Amino acid sequence: MITKLTAEERKSTLAELPGWEPTVGRDALHKSFKFEDFNAAFGFMTRIAIKAQELNHHPEWFNVYNQVEITLSTHEASGLTQRDIELARFIEKVSAGATRS
Amino acid sequence: MITKLTAEERKSTLAELPGWEPTVGRDALHKSFKFEDFNAAFGFMTRIAIKAQELNHHPEWFNVYNQVEITLSTHEASGLTQRDIELARFIEKVSAGATRS
Repeated sequence: MITKLTAEERKSTLAELPGWEPTVGRDALHKSFKFEDFNAAFGFMTRIAIKAQELNHHPEWFNVYNQVEITLSTHEASGLTQRDIELARFIEKVSAGATRS
Repeated sequence: MITKLTAEERKSTLAELPGWEPTVGRDALHKSFKFEDFNAAFGFMTRIAIKAQELNHHPEWFNVYNQVEITLSTHEASGLTQRDIELARFIEKVSAGATRS
């Protein structure tokens, strides 16, 4: 059983993940990304999709044209866990092409 | 300039697109899809993404694990146009693997 992040883990984690904000009303993290066009946005999503499958941990996300909104939370723990941090780190790594968040 | 669908066009179109419902509060169409797993859901999205790029007409969509929520509307016309119908028809064609909508 995976457990929720402690207050200390959250603090240190958020410091290293710029732009990721706690979601209002639930224990989750959220970030918005904007790319040059749909090709760049969906390419970004595809890289994340492949990684998510490998981690067996999937994002909740919304896309319209060049915008991608991502929410991370762990269903099994009803909140934020190390799995979300691992996926957020990967997302940061592949978000280099984002024109702004 | 692309124009919005007429009342008659909407009626005949909705009859041939089962499950597509007018969105409350805006001139758009919406449908929910559920697949066996994330692989099937994202594969479905990928086929639509490639088609959307070809049509230069993109969906608004939300995905979490095996669920995909799609909204179609034409920004340029502030409402439903023939482009949305064309994309909806393609989506229907590739949604065969959906376990239920």
